[in-house]
Amino acid sequence: MPRGRTKVANPETARRILAAAEAHFAAQGMAGARTEEIALAAHANKAMLYYYFGDKRRLHRAVLENLLRQLRKNVYGPERPNATARERLLQFVGAYFDFLASHPNYPRLVQRAAIEATRQFEWMKREYMRPFVNKLVSLVKGGIESGEFRRVDPKHTAFTIMGMTTSYFAAAPIFSSVVGHDLLAPEAVRERRVALMDFLEHALMRAKATNTKMSTPKVSTR
Amino acid sequence: MPRGRTKVANPETARRILAAAEAHFAAQGMAGARTEEIALAAHANKAMLYYYFGDKRRLHRAVLENLLRQLRKNVYGPERPNATARERLLQFVGAYFDFLASHPNYPRLVQRAAIEATRQFEWMKREYMRPFVNKLVSLVKGGIESGEFRRVDPKHTAFTIMGMTTSYFAAAPIFSSVVGHDLLAPEAVRERRVALMDFLEHALMRAKATNTKMSTPKVSTR
Repeated sequence: MPRGRTKVANPETARRILAAAEAHFAAQGMAGARTEEIALAAHANKAMLYYYFGDKRRLHRAVLENLLRQLRKNVYGPERPNATARERLLQFVGAYFDFLASHPNYPRLVQRAAIEATRQFEWMKREYMRPFVNKLVSLVKGGIESGEFRRVDPKHTAFTIMGMTTSYFAAAPIFSSVVGHDLLAPEAVRERRVALMDFLEHALMRAKATNTKMSTPKVSTR
Repeated sequence: MPRGRTKVANPETARRILAAAEAHFAAQGMAGARTEEIALAAHANKAMLYYYFGDKRRLHRAVLENLLRQLRKNVYGPERPNATARERLLQFVGAYFDFLASHPNYPRLVQRAAIEATRQFEWMKREYMRPFVNKLVSLVKGGIESGEFRRVDPKHTAFTIMGMTTSYFAAAPIFSSVVGHDLLAPEAVRERRVALMDFLEHALMRAKATNTKMSTPKVSTR
């Protein structure tokens, strides 16, 4: 990230600038956010911001790359060789849900990037959205092939899963005031996760779902 | 809409201005759209635009009111006294889907209004979003009470239905280029509708869904 000019660079300052930039770009968009205000919020100065990130456009890209790197790390976990298709899908969707729950700026940043149709967005589509859709499609296909899922349209099912998962967090700031309580409070998010996974499972499962919990621990018999 | 100053008003001009404004506000937002360009696209002049709509803010509100009036008319159809809870829900969601499919500017306009958090938005939440959520919640509750639906969380189910239905149209301009074909083409929209309704039904139905189609015509026995 630092451009190697000197060794006086302080990575802690760069991290603070990145965090402040994430919040400002989410709230005001690429065009609306001001580098002066981002530097101020990060307890840094504009010279440091330009030193680390080049310009506003590159800072915006660094914010998105930082978030997408975390998303990748969270959702594409190690393959569990003995997992069923159902377990694989629920783990992937659950990890995406948990990422969204812990990164409240993410939906607005992506929505804004899509609406502003910046050049960033071409890169995001190629590097991140296409692999994400492909992964979901292959998880759904896996479940159809193993006989665990009904014969649904894998592509539309992938769109539906993305939409039902993402939209809650994207709409929560608005819908909290529509329904009169904070939809991003920990208890509300826990409720949401249970309801979402339940809905998804029943929509896909071939047979009537049983009450078997995948997380039930085996009884020790020592 | 006209402010009653004279009778020379031409409602056809007002309609053209409204249609042009809808497209411009969807593409550029309230702040970005220019009344000069809207008037030009409507083959009108700025004086006519101000005569009919007052100013840009009021024109923006007129665009939203016009769309939301159509949405209401489309989704809150006449109550069918003998309809099952399942039929009522599918009819409501299907009508909402059809409205979205025929009003491509709508998702972006609402998204932008939410992001820009205009005063319009307070009015939209109160007049439109709250009744919409409440209606969906009551349709889901109806199905639980009649024993047709599983015992799901009605509020979260309402959010899920809104998200999975709206997100496709909101994301289609982006995801068309992600998947490499036009997701708003008539054939794609037809496929989407079938996949969405199928997903919804299976997610909610109490028992394993049967293949009975609600639209199967009764065999005539004359």
